[in-house]
Amino acid sequence: MKVVVVGVGLIGGSMAKDIKQHMSEATVYGIDQNPAHLEEAQALQIIDEKGTEEDLKTADVVLVSIPVDVMLTVLPQILHLVPETCVVCDAGSTKQLICEQLADHPKRRNYLACHPIAGTEFSGPSAAINGLFEGKTNIICEVEKTAFALQEKALALFQTLGMRIRYMNPQAHDRHIAYVSHLSHISSFMLGKTVIEKERNERDIFDMAGSGFESTVRLAKSSPAMWTPIFEQNKDNVIETLEEYIQNLTAFKALLLADDYEGIFQEMNNTNRIKSILKGIPLNKKTQE
Amino acid sequence: MKVVVVGVGLIGGSMAKDIKQHMSEATVYGIDQNPAHLEEAQALQIIDEKGTEEDLKTADVVLVSIPVDVMLTVLPQILHLVPETCVVCDAGSTKQLICEQLADHPKRRNYLACHPIAGTEFSGPSAAINGLFEGKTNIICEVEKTAFALQEKALALFQTLGMRIRYMNPQAHDRHIAYVSHLSHISSFMLGKTVIEKERNERDIFDMAGSGFESTVRLAKSSPAMWTPIFEQNKDNVIETLEEYIQNLTAFKALLLADDYEGIFQEMNNTNRIKSILKGIPLNKKTQE
Repeated sequence: MKVVVVGVGLIGGSMAKDIKQHMSEATVYGIDQNPAHLEEAQALQIIDEKGTEEDLKTADVVLVSIPVDVMLTVLPQILHLVPETCVVCDAGSTKQLICEQLADHPKRRNYLACHPIAGTEFSGPSAAINGLFEGKTNIICEVEKTAFALQEKALALFQTLGMRIRYMNPQAHDRHIAYVSHLSHISSFMLGKTVIEKERNERDIFDMAGSGFESTVRLAKSSPAMWTPIFEQNKDNVIETLEEYIQNLTAFKALLLADDYEGIFQEMNNTNRIKSILKGIPLNKKTQE
Repeated sequence: MKVVVVGVGLIGGSMAKDIKQHMSEATVYGIDQNPAHLEEAQALQIIDEKGTEEDLKTADVVLVSIPVDVMLTVLPQILHLVPETCVVCDAGSTKQLICEQLADHPKRRNYLACHPIAGTEFSGPSAAINGLFEGKTNIICEVEKTAFALQEKALALFQTLGMRIRYMNPQAHDRHIAYVSHLSHISSFMLGKTVIEKERNERDIFDMAGSGFESTVRLAKSSPAMWTPIFEQNKDNVIETLEEYIQNLTAFKALLLADDYEGIFQEMNNTNRIKSILKGIPLNKKTQE
Protein backbone atom coordinates (compact mmCIF):
# COMPACT_ATOMS: atom_id res chain seq x y z
CA MET A 1 0.00 0.00 0.00
CA LYS A 2 1.33 3.39 -1.00
CA VAL A 3 0.56 6.17 1.49
CA VAL A 4 1.48 9.77 0.74
CA VAL A 5 1.50 12.17 3.69
CA VAL A 6 1.28 15.82 2.64
CA GLY A 7 2.53 17.97 5.52
CA VAL A 8 4.85 15.97 7.80
CA GLY A 9 4.22 17.94 11.01
CA LEU A 10 2.59 16.89 14.27
CA ILE A 11 -0.55 15.32 12.76
CA GLY A 12 0.79 14.00 9.44
CA GLY A 13 4.00 12.82 11.06
CA SER A 14 2.17 11.01 13.86
CA MET A 15 -0.10 9.30 11.31
CA ALA A 16 2.97 8.25 9.32
CA LYS A 17 4.63 6.80 12.42
CA ASP A 18 1.57 4.74 13.38
CA ILE A 19 1.07 3.50 9.83
CA LYS A 20 4.70 2.38 9.62
CA GLN A 21 4.35 0.65 12.97
CA HIS A 22 1.03 -1.14 12.40
CA MET A 23 0.89 -1.69 8.63
CA SER A 24 3.97 -3.50 7.47
CA GLU A 25 2.67 -3.58 3.89
CA ALA A 26 2.60 0.23 3.70
CA THR A 27 5.29 2.49 2.29
CA VAL A 28 4.99 6.08 3.46
CA TYR A 29 6.02 8.95 1.16
CA GLY A 30 6.32 12.45 2.58
CA ILE A 31 5.66 15.80 0.85
CA ASP A 32 6.22 19.12 2.59
CA GLN A 33 6.79 22.62 1.26
CA ASN A 34 9.44 23.07 3.95
CA PRO A 35 12.55 21.11 2.78
CA ALA A 36 14.03 21.15 6.29
CA HIS A 37 10.92 19.48 7.69
CA LEU A 38 11.10 16.84 5.00
CA GLU A 39 14.77 16.13 5.76
CA GLU A 40 13.95 15.94 9.44
CA ALA A 41 11.02 13.58 8.86
CA GLN A 42 13.27 11.27 6.88
CA ALA A 43 16.10 11.44 9.40
CA LEU A 44 13.62 10.59 12.19
CA GLN A 45 12.32 7.68 10.03
CA ILE A 46 8.83 9.15 10.18
CA ILE A 47 8.57 8.62 6.40
CA ASP A 48 10.17 5.99 4.19
CA GLU A 49 10.79 8.23 1.18
CA LYS A 50 10.37 11.77 -0.01
CA GLY A 51 7.39 11.93 -2.34
CA THR A 52 6.69 13.78 -5.60
CA GLU A 53 3.70 14.54 -7.83
CA GLU A 54 4.39 11.23 -9.53
CA ASP A 55 3.82 9.39 -6.26
CA LEU A 56 0.40 11.05 -5.90
CA LYS A 57 -0.53 9.55 -9.29
CA THR A 58 0.01 6.03 -7.95
CA ALA A 59 -1.04 6.52 -4.32
CA ASP A 60 -3.58 4.36 -2.46
CA VAL A 61 -4.11 6.82 0.39
CA VAL A 62 -3.19 10.51 0.67
CA LEU A 63 -3.30 12.18 4.10
CA VAL A 64 -3.21 15.97 4.01
CA SER A 65 -2.42 17.91 7.18
CA ILE A 66 -1.39 21.44 6.30
CA PRO A 67 -2.72 24.87 7.35
CA VAL A 68 -6.36 25.23 6.33
CA ASP A 69 -5.74 28.20 4.01
CA VAL A 70 -3.17 26.24 1.99
CA MET A 71 -5.59 23.31 2.01
CA LEU A 72 -8.06 25.28 -0.13
CA THR A 73 -5.65 25.38 -3.09
CA VAL A 74 -3.65 22.20 -2.52
CA LEU A 75 -6.51 19.73 -1.98
CA PRO A 76 -8.11 20.34 -5.42
CA GLN A 77 -4.70 19.89 -7.07
CA ILE A 78 -4.06 16.62 -5.26
CA LEU A 79 -7.50 15.31 -6.19
CA HIS A 80 -6.77 15.99 -9.86
CA LEU A 81 -3.61 13.89 -9.65
CA VAL A 82 -4.68 10.81 -7.70
CA PRO A 83 -6.07 7.63 -9.35
CA GLU A 84 -9.73 6.63 -8.99
CA THR A 85 -8.86 4.06 -6.32
CA CYS A 86 -7.16 6.55 -4.03
CA VAL A 87 -8.80 8.19 -0.99
CA VAL A 88 -7.64 11.66 0.02
CA CYS A 89 -8.28 12.58 3.69
CA ASP A 90 -7.56 15.94 5.23
CA ALA A 91 -7.12 16.84 8.91
CA GLY A 92 -8.27 20.45 8.93
CA SER A 93 -9.78 22.05 12.02
CA THR A 94 -12.43 23.72 9.82
CA LYS A 95 -14.68 21.82 7.46
CA GLN A 96 -17.32 24.08 5.92
CA LEU A 97 -15.17 26.14 3.53
CA ILE A 98 -13.11 23.14 2.46
CA CYS A 99 -16.22 21.09 1.71
CA GLU A 100 -17.73 24.01 -0.23
CA GLN A 101 -14.50 24.45 -2.18
CA LEU A 102 -14.54 20.80 -3.24
CA ALA A 103 -18.32 20.42 -3.74
CA ASP A 104 -18.13 20.50 -7.54
CA HIS A 105 -14.71 18.96 -7.97
CA PRO A 106 -14.83 16.15 -10.60
CA LYS A 107 -13.00 13.89 -8.14
CA ARG A 108 -15.14 14.82 -5.10
CA ARG A 109 -15.84 11.12 -4.48
CA ASN A 110 -12.14 10.56 -3.81
CA TYR A 111 -12.15 13.02 -0.91
CA LEU A 112 -13.10 12.25 2.72
CA ALA A 113 -13.48 15.31 4.95
CA CYS A 114 -11.91 14.51 8.34
CA HIS A 115 -10.91 16.21 11.55
CA PRO A 116 -8.92 13.99 13.92
CA ILE A 117 -9.15 15.76 17.28
CA ALA A 118 -5.71 15.00 18.56
CA GLY A 119 -3.48 18.05 18.45
CA THR A 120 -0.97 19.16 21.02
CA GLU A 121 0.53 22.63 21.38
CA PHE A 122 3.66 21.45 19.56
CA SER A 123 4.31 21.39 15.83
CA GLY A 124 6.73 20.11 13.20
CA PRO A 125 8.07 16.58 12.56
CA SER A 126 9.87 16.44 15.92
CA ALA A 127 6.45 16.75 17.63
CA ALA A 128 5.17 13.57 15.92
CA ILE A 129 4.55 10.67 18.30
CA ASN A 130 3.28 7.11 18.12
CA GLY A 131 -0.19 6.47 19.50
CA LEU A 132 -1.37 10.09 19.24
CA PHE A 133 -4.74 9.01 17.82
CA GLU A 134 -5.46 6.09 20.16
CA GLY A 135 -8.97 6.55 21.58
CA LYS A 136 -9.36 9.99 19.99
CA THR A 137 -12.36 11.18 18.01
CA ASN A 138 -12.23 11.62 14.25
CA ILE A 139 -15.06 13.78 12.92
CA ILE A 140 -16.06 12.85 9.38
CA CYS A 141 -18.21 15.24 7.36
CA GLU A 142 -20.40 14.59 4.29
CA VAL A 143 -19.45 10.91 4.32
CA GLU A 144 -22.15 10.19 1.71
CA LYS A 145 -20.21 12.23 -0.87
CA THR A 146 -17.25 9.85 -0.76
CA ALA A 147 -17.17 6.65 -2.82
CA PHE A 148 -18.20 3.74 -0.63
CA ALA A 149 -15.10 1.62 -1.27
CA LEU A 150 -12.91 4.61 -0.39
CA GLN A 151 -14.86 5.25 2.85
CA GLU A 152 -14.10 1.66 3.78
CA LYS A 153 -10.42 2.02 3.00
CA ALA A 154 -10.12 5.16 5.13
CA LEU A 155 -12.13 3.72 8.03
CA ALA A 156 -9.91 0.62 8.12
CA LEU A 157 -6.91 2.93 8.41
CA PHE A 158 -8.50 5.01 11.20
CA GLN A 159 -9.38 1.82 13.02
CA THR A 160 -5.74 0.80 12.88
CA LEU A 161 -4.83 4.17 14.44
CA GLY A 162 -7.39 3.45 17.21
CA MET A 163 -9.79 6.29 16.44
CA ARG A 164 -13.49 6.63 17.28
CA ILE A 165 -15.56 7.93 14.37
CA ARG A 166 -18.31 10.57 14.59
CA TYR A 167 -20.34 11.78 11.61
CA MET A 168 -21.46 15.38 11.36
CA ASN A 169 -22.28 17.97 8.75
CA PRO A 170 -19.63 20.65 8.11
CA GLN A 171 -21.78 23.47 9.52
CA ALA A 172 -22.38 21.67 12.83
CA HIS A 173 -18.71 20.69 12.99
CA ASP A 174 -17.50 24.27 12.62
CA ARG A 175 -20.06 25.64 15.10
CA HIS A 176 -19.27 23.06 17.79
CA ILE A 177 -15.52 22.98 17.37
CA ALA A 178 -15.48 26.77 17.84
CA TYR A 179 -16.59 26.12 21.44
CA VAL A 180 -14.48 23.16 22.45
CA SER A 181 -11.31 24.04 20.58
CA HIS A 182 -11.05 27.43 18.89
CA LEU A 183 -12.30 29.44 21.90
CA SER A 184 -9.90 27.58 24.23
CA HIS A 185 -7.01 28.73 22.07
CA ILE A 186 -8.09 32.37 22.12
CA SER A 187 -8.75 32.34 25.88
CA SER A 188 -5.30 30.87 26.39
CA PHE A 189 -3.50 33.26 24.03
CA MET A 190 -5.19 36.30 25.58
CA LEU A 191 -4.49 35.08 29.12
CA GLY A 192 -0.82 34.74 28.18
CA LYS A 193 -0.88 38.21 26.64
CA THR A 194 -2.50 39.79 29.71
CA VAL A 195 0.14 38.36 32.04
CA ILE A 196 3.08 39.09 29.70
CA GLU A 197 1.95 42.72 29.41
CA LYS A 198 1.81 43.01 33.18
CA GLU A 199 5.26 41.51 33.50
CA ARG A 200 6.75 44.29 31.34
CA ASN A 201 6.15 46.67 34.22
CA GLU A 202 6.51 44.35 37.16
CA ARG A 203 9.39 41.91 36.88
CA ASP A 204 9.55 38.35 38.09
CA ILE A 205 5.86 37.67 38.43
CA PHE A 206 6.31 34.43 36.49
CA ASP A 207 8.38 33.23 39.39
CA MET A 208 5.03 32.97 41.16
CA ALA A 209 3.31 30.95 38.45
CA GLY A 210 2.39 27.38 39.25
CA SER A 211 1.13 24.41 37.29
CA GLY A 212 -2.39 25.89 37.18
CA PHE A 213 -1.21 28.85 35.15
CA GLU A 214 0.92 26.57 32.97
CA SER A 215 -2.07 24.39 32.17
CA THR A 216 -4.32 27.34 31.34
CA VAL A 217 -1.85 29.01 28.96
CA ARG A 218 -0.53 25.79 27.41
CA LEU A 219 -2.37 26.39 24.14
CA ALA A 220 -0.73 29.84 23.81
CA LYS A 221 2.35 27.97 22.61
CA SER A 222 0.44 26.92 19.48
CA SER A 223 1.54 27.83 15.95
CA PRO A 224 0.17 31.19 14.69
CA ALA A 225 0.66 30.04 11.07
CA MET A 226 -1.71 27.16 11.70
CA TRP A 227 -4.25 29.03 13.82
CA THR A 228 -4.67 32.31 11.92
CA PRO A 229 -6.38 30.68 8.90
CA ILE A 230 -8.54 28.55 11.22
CA PHE A 231 -9.90 31.69 12.88
CA GLU A 232 -10.34 33.29 9.46
CA GLN A 233 -12.32 30.37 8.05
CA ASN A 234 -14.44 29.99 11.17
CA LYS A 235 -14.78 33.72 11.83
CA ASP A 236 -18.54 33.90 12.44
CA ASN A 237 -18.70 30.99 14.87
CA VAL A 238 -15.57 32.09 16.69
CA ILE A 239 -16.92 35.62 17.14
CA GLU A 240 -20.13 34.16 18.60
CA THR A 241 -18.22 32.06 21.15
CA LEU A 242 -15.98 35.00 22.01
CA GLU A 243 -19.01 37.21 22.65
CA GLU A 244 -20.57 34.65 24.97
CA TYR A 245 -17.25 34.17 26.77
CA ILE A 246 -16.71 37.92 27.21
CA GLN A 247 -20.29 38.23 28.44
CA ASN A 248 -19.73 35.53 31.08
CA LEU A 249 -16.48 37.17 32.22
CA THR A 250 -18.21 40.54 32.42
CA ALA A 251 -21.04 39.04 34.47
CA PHE A 252 -18.49 37.49 36.84
CA LYS A 253 -16.84 40.91 37.22
CA ALA A 254 -20.25 42.45 37.96
CA LEU A 255 -20.82 39.89 40.75
CA LEU A 256 -17.43 40.84 42.23
CA LEU A 257 -18.22 44.57 41.99
CA ALA A 258 -21.57 43.94 43.72
CA ASP A 259 -19.87 41.85 46.45
CA ASP A 260 -22.25 39.02 45.54
CA TYR A 261 -20.09 36.16 46.81
CA GLU A 262 -23.01 33.78 47.05
CA GLY A 263 -23.50 34.36 43.32
CA ILE A 264 -19.78 33.79 42.66
CA PHE A 265 -19.89 30.56 44.64
CA GLN A 266 -22.87 29.37 42.59
CA GLU A 267 -21.18 30.24 39.28
CA MET A 268 -18.21 28.07 40.19
CA ASN A 269 -20.29 25.35 41.76
CA ASN A 270 -22.43 25.02 38.63
CA THR A 271 -19.33 24.84 36.46
CA ASN A 272 -17.75 22.13 38.62
CA ARG A 273 -19.96 19.82 36.56
CA ILE A 274 -17.08 19.97 34.10
CA LYS A 275 -15.38 17.31 36.28
CA SER A 276 -17.73 14.56 35.21
CA ILE A 277 -17.80 15.83 31.64
CA LEU A 278 -14.01 15.76 31.36
CA LYS A 279 -13.87 12.18 32.60
CA GLY A 280 -15.38 11.24 29.27
CA ILE A 281 -12.63 12.90 27.22
CA PRO A 282 -9.99 10.43 26.07
CA LEU A 283 -6.59 11.94 26.83
CA ASN A 284 -3.31 10.89 25.42
CA LYS A 285 -0.88 10.42 28.27
CA LYS A 286 2.02 10.97 25.92
CA THR A 287 0.90 14.52 25.18
CA GLN A 288 0.82 15.37 28.88
CA GLU A 289 4.32 16.28 29.93
CA MET B 1 9.08 17.67 67.18
CA LYS B 2 5.36 18.21 67.45
CA VAL B 3 3.70 19.41 64.24
CA VAL B 4 0.01 20.35 64.16
CA VAL B 5 -1.61 20.57 60.73
CA VAL B 6 -4.84 22.60 60.75
CA GLY B 7 -6.81 21.71 57.63
CA VAL B 8 -5.84 18.24 56.34
CA GLY B 9 -6.73 18.79 52.68
CA LEU B 10 -4.54 18.91 49.59
CA ILE B 11 -1.94 21.35 50.96
CA GLY B 12 -1.95 20.50 54.65
CA GLY B 13 -2.19 16.79 53.94
CA SER B 14 0.69 16.88 51.44
CA MET B 15 2.85 18.79 53.95
CA ALA B 16 2.00 16.21 56.61
CA LYS B 17 2.96 13.33 54.29
CA ASP B 18 6.34 14.86 53.44
CA ILE B 19 7.07 15.69 57.08
CA LYS B 20 6.31 12.11 58.12
CA GLN B 21 8.50 10.81 55.30
CA HIS B 22 11.53 13.07 55.80
CA MET B 23 11.49 13.93 59.53
CA SER B 24 11.42 10.77 61.60
CA GLU B 25 11.53 12.82 64.81
CA ALA B 26 8.24 14.56 63.97
CA THR B 27 4.78 13.54 65.17
CA VAL B 28 1.98 15.03 63.08
CA TYR B 29 -1.35 15.95 64.68
CA GLY B 30 -4.31 16.84 62.48
CA ILE B 31 -7.16 19.27 63.15
CA ASP B 32 -10.03 19.76 60.73
CA GLN B 33 -13.55 21.09 61.16
CA ASN B 34 -14.76 18.28 58.92
CA PRO B 35 -14.73 15.06 61.02
CA ALA B 36 -14.92 12.89 57.91
CA HIS B 37 -11.76 14.50 56.50
CA LEU B 38 -9.98 13.92 59.78
CA GLU B 39 -10.96 10.25 59.83
CA GLU B 40 -9.85 9.91 56.24
CA ALA B 41 -6.51 11.60 56.94
CA GLN B 42 -5.88 9.18 59.79
CA ALA B 43 -6.98 6.15 57.78
CA LEU B 44 -4.64 7.20 54.95
CA GLN B 45 -1.85 7.66 57.54
CA ILE B 46 -1.43 11.26 56.48
CA ILE B 47 -1.45 12.24 60.18
CA ASP B 48 -0.26 10.30 63.22
CA GLU B 49 -2.97 11.50 65.60
CA LYS B 50 -6.03 13.67 65.75
CA GLY B 51 -5.15 16.95 67.47
CA THR B 52 -6.91 19.18 69.99
CA GLU B 53 -6.52 22.69 71.43
CA GLU B 54 -4.23 21.12 74.02
CA ASP B 55 -1.87 19.99 71.28
CA LEU B 56 -1.63 23.55 69.98
CA LYS B 57 -0.41 24.60 73.45
CA THR B 58 2.60 22.29 73.18
CA ALA B 59 3.25 22.46 69.44
CA ASP B 60 6.61 23.27 67.81
CA VAL B 61 5.17 24.01 64.37
CA VAL B 62 1.58 24.72 63.30
CA LEU B 63 0.72 24.64 59.59
CA VAL B 64 -2.63 26.21 58.70
CA SER B 65 -4.18 25.53 55.30
CA ILE B 66 -7.87 26.36 55.38
CA PRO B 67 -10.05 28.70 53.28
CA VAL B 68 -8.79 32.28 53.59
CA ASP B 69 -12.02 33.61 55.14
CA VAL B 70 -11.87 31.07 57.97
CA MET B 71 -8.17 31.91 58.33
CA LEU B 72 -9.06 35.45 59.47
CA THR B 73 -10.75 34.18 62.63
CA VAL B 74 -8.85 30.93 63.24
CA LEU B 75 -5.26 32.22 62.92
CA PRO B 76 -5.58 34.78 65.78
CA GLN B 77 -7.07 32.04 68.01
CA ILE B 78 -4.26 29.62 67.22
CA LEU B 79 -1.63 32.29 67.90
CA HIS B 80 -3.12 32.90 71.36
CA LEU B 81 -2.78 29.20 72.19
CA VAL B 82 0.71 28.31 70.95
CA PRO B 83 3.86 28.59 73.13
CA GLU B 84 6.53 31.28 72.48
CA THR B 85 8.76 28.71 70.74
CA CYS B 86 6.15 27.70 68.17
CA VAL B 87 6.00 29.03 64.60
CA VAL B 88 2.59 29.24 62.92
CA CYS B 89 2.68 29.24 59.08
CA ASP B 90 -0.33 29.66 56.85
CA ALA B 91 -0.76 28.70 53.19
CA GLY B 92 -3.35 31.24 52.06
CA SER B 93 -3.54 32.42 48.46
CA THR B 94 -4.08 36.01 49.69
CA LYS B 95 -1.73 37.75 52.09
CA GLN B 96 -2.69 41.41 52.56
CA LEU B 97 -5.86 41.04 54.64
CA ILE B 98 -4.41 38.24 56.76
CA CYS B 99 -1.28 40.27 57.51
CA GLU B 100 -3.40 43.32 58.37
CA GLN B 101 -5.61 41.22 60.62
CA LEU B 102 -2.59 39.97 62.58
CA ALA B 103 -0.55 43.20 62.55
CA ASP B 104 -1.29 44.08 66.19
CA HIS B 105 -1.64 40.56 67.54
CA PRO B 106 0.42 40.14 70.73
CA LYS B 107 1.89 36.93 69.26
CA ARG B 108 2.58 38.42 65.79
CA ARG B 109 6.22 37.29 66.05
CA ASN B 110 5.06 33.67 66.13
CA TYR B 111 3.39 33.97 62.73
CA LEU B 112 5.09 33.53 59.33
CA ALA B 113 2.95 34.58 56.36
CA CYS B 114 3.44 32.00 53.59
CA HIS B 115 1.99 31.03 50.24
CA PRO B 116 3.34 27.75 48.88
CA ILE B 117 2.45 27.84 45.17
CA ALA B 118 1.68 24.21 44.70
CA GLY B 119 -2.02 23.59 44.35
CA THR B 120 -3.77 21.23 42.02
CA GLU B 121 -7.43 21.32 41.02
CA PHE B 122 -8.17 18.56 43.54
CA SER B 123 -9.03 18.95 47.22
CA GLY B 124 -9.47 16.97 50.43
CA PRO B 125 -7.15 14.47 52.16
CA SER B 126 -7.33 12.00 49.28
CA ALA B 127 -5.72 14.64 47.05
CA ALA B 128 -2.64 14.83 49.28
CA ILE B 129 0.55 13.51 47.68
CA ASN B 130 4.22 13.15 48.57
CA GLY B 131 6.63 15.54 46.89
CA LEU B 132 4.01 18.17 46.01
CA PHE B 133 6.31 21.01 47.10
CA GLU B 134 9.56 19.77 45.52
CA GLY B 135 11.03 22.64 43.49
CA LYS B 136 7.98 24.84 44.06
CA THR B 137 8.05 28.48 45.16
CA ASN B 138 7.01 29.52 48.65
CA ILE B 139 6.27 33.25 48.91
CA ILE B 140 7.00 34.63 52.39
CA CYS B 141 5.64 38.05 53.35
CA GLU B 142 6.76 40.44 56.12
CA VAL B 143 9.51 38.05 57.16
CA GLU B 144 10.99 40.75 59.41
CA LYS B 145 7.91 40.62 61.64
CA THR B 146 8.58 37.00 62.61
CA ALA B 147 10.99 36.12 65.44
CA PHE B 148 14.35 35.20 63.92
CA ALA B 149 14.62 31.78 65.57
CA LEU B 150 11.13 30.93 64.31
CA GLN B 151 12.00 32.04 60.76
CA GLU B 152 14.90 29.62 60.92
CA LYS B 153 12.73 26.79 62.16
CA ALA B 154 10.19 27.30 59.35
CA LEU B 155 12.85 27.68 56.65
CA ALA B 156 14.49 24.42 57.71
CA LEU B 157 11.12 22.73 57.30
CA PHE B 158 10.51 24.27 53.87
CA GLN B 159 13.99 23.20 52.81
CA THR B 160 13.12 19.65 53.78
CA LEU B 161 10.02 19.90 51.56
CA GLY B 162 12.29 21.08 48.70
CA MET B 163 10.82 24.57 48.32
CA ARG B 164 12.41 27.71 46.87
CA ILE B 165 11.79 30.81 48.99
CA ARG B 166 10.85 34.26 47.64
CA TYR B 167 10.29 37.29 49.86
CA MET B 168 7.66 39.85 48.97
CA ASN B 169 5.40 42.37 50.67
CA PRO B 170 1.72 41.37 50.99
CA GLN B 171 0.51 44.08 48.57
CA ALA B 172 2.88 42.97 45.79
CA HIS B 173 2.00 39.32 46.47
CA ASP B 174 -1.72 39.90 46.09
CA ARG B 175 -1.29 42.07 42.98
CA HIS B 176 0.97 39.58 41.19
CA ILE B 177 -0.81 36.41 42.22
CA ALA B 178 -4.03 37.87 40.80
CA TYR B 179 -2.39 37.62 37.36
CA VAL B 180 -0.66 34.27 37.50
CA SER B 181 -3.22 32.37 39.55
CA HIS B 182 -6.54 34.03 40.32
CA LEU B 183 -7.23 35.21 36.74
CA SER B 184 -6.38 31.74 35.37
CA HIS B 185 -9.08 30.27 37.58
CA ILE B 186 -11.73 32.74 36.43
CA SER B 187 -10.79 32.33 32.75
CA SER B 188 -11.07 28.58 33.18
CA PHE B 189 -14.37 28.65 35.10
CA MET B 190 -15.97 31.00 32.57
CA LEU B 191 -14.68 28.95 29.62
CA GLY B 192 -16.26 25.88 31.19
CA LYS B 193 -19.49 27.80 31.75
CA THR B 194 -19.61 29.08 28.16
CA VAL B 195 -19.26 25.58 26.73
CA ILE B 196 -21.64 23.96 29.22
CA GLU B 197 -24.30 26.55 28.38
CA LYS B 198 -23.88 25.81 24.69
CA GLU B 199 -24.17 22.10 25.32
CA ARG B 200 -27.62 22.57 26.87
CA ASN B 201 -28.94 23.37 23.41
CA GLU B 202 -26.64 21.29 21.26
CA ARG B 203 -25.93 17.83 22.63
CA ASP B 204 -22.73 15.86 22.43
CA ILE B 205 -20.35 18.69 21.70
CA PHE B 206 -18.05 17.44 24.46
CA ASP B 207 -17.52 14.39 22.33
CA MET B 208 -15.42 16.73 20.18
CA ALA B 209 -13.30 18.06 23.02
CA GLY B 210 -9.64 17.13 23.04
CA SER B 211 -6.78 17.46 25.49
CA GLY B 212 -6.41 21.16 24.65
CA PHE B 213 -9.86 21.91 26.01
CA GLU B 214 -9.24 19.66 29.01
CA SER B 215 -6.06 21.55 29.85
CA THR B 216 -7.69 24.97 29.53
CA VAL B 217 -10.67 24.14 31.77
CA ARG B 218 -8.74 22.01 34.27
CA LEU B 219 -8.92 24.72 36.94
CA ALA B 220 -12.72 24.85 36.63
CA LYS B 221 -12.74 21.69 38.74
CA SER B 222 -11.43 23.71 41.70
CA SER B 223 -13.29 24.06 45.00
CA PRO B 224 -15.76 26.99 45.12
CA ALA B 225 -15.55 27.01 48.94
CA MET B 226 -11.83 27.68 48.71
CA TRP B 227 -11.93 30.14 45.82
CA THR B 228 -14.88 32.38 46.70
CA PRO B 229 -13.13 33.95 49.74
CA ILE B 230 -9.89 34.32 47.73
CA PHE B 231 -11.72 36.40 45.12
CA GLU B 232 -13.43 38.36 47.91
CA GLN B 233 -10.19 39.18 49.69
CA ASN B 234 -8.36 40.06 46.47
CA LYS B 235 -11.34 41.77 44.84
CA ASP B 236 -9.62 44.97 43.62
CA ASN B 237 -6.64 43.22 42.03
CA VAL B 238 -8.81 40.51 40.50
CA ILE B 239 -11.14 43.08 38.94
CA GLU B 240 -8.14 44.87 37.43
CA THR B 241 -6.82 41.65 35.85
CA LEU B 242 -10.30 40.74 34.62
CA GLU B 243 -10.69 44.14 32.96
CA GLU B 244 -7.36 43.79 31.15
CA TYR B 245 -8.24 40.25 30.08
CA ILE B 246 -11.68 41.27 28.78
CA GLN B 247 -10.06 44.20 26.98
CA ASN B 248 -7.58 41.88 25.24
CA LEU B 249 -10.35 39.46 24.24
CA THR B 250 -12.44 42.34 22.91
CA ALA B 251 -9.46 43.63 20.91
CA PHE B 252 -8.97 40.15 19.44
CA LYS B 253 -12.63 40.07 18.44
CA ALA B 254 -12.25 43.49 16.81
CA LEU B 255 -9.32 42.19 14.72
CA LEU B 256 -11.51 39.29 13.59
CA LEU B 257 -14.41 41.62 12.74
CA ALA B 258 -12.01 43.80 10.74
CA ASP B 259 -10.57 40.73 8.93
CA ASP B 260 -7.13 41.84 10.15
CA TYR B 261 -5.47 38.42 10.01
CA GLU B 262 -1.98 39.88 9.95
CA GLY B 263 -2.86 41.50 13.28
CA ILE B 264 -4.22 38.21 14.64
CA PHE B 265 -1.05 36.42 13.57
CA GLN B 266 1.07 39.04 15.36
CA GLU B 267 -1.01 38.78 18.56
CA MET B 268 -0.39 35.05 18.72
CA ASN B 269 3.22 35.29 17.60
CA ASN B 270 4.02 37.82 20.34
CA THR B 271 2.36 35.61 22.95
CA ASN B 272 4.31 32.53 21.82
CA ARG B 273 7.05 34.00 24.03
CA ILE B 274 5.15 32.20 26.80
CA LYS B 275 7.01 29.03 25.66
CA SER B 276 10.35 30.19 27.03
CA ILE B 277 8.70 31.68 30.10
CA LEU B 278 6.93 28.44 30.97
CA LYS B 279 10.16 26.48 30.76
CA GLY B 280 11.15 28.25 33.95
CA ILE B 281 8.08 27.09 35.91
CA PRO B 282 8.78 24.06 38.06
CA LEU B 283 6.00 21.56 37.49
CA ASN B 284 5.10 18.64 39.63
CA LYS B 285 4.88 15.56 37.45
CA LYS B 286 2.56 13.95 39.94
CA THR B 287 -0.04 16.65 39.46
CA GLN B 288 -0.04 16.13 35.70
CA GLU B 289 -2.31 13.24 34.99
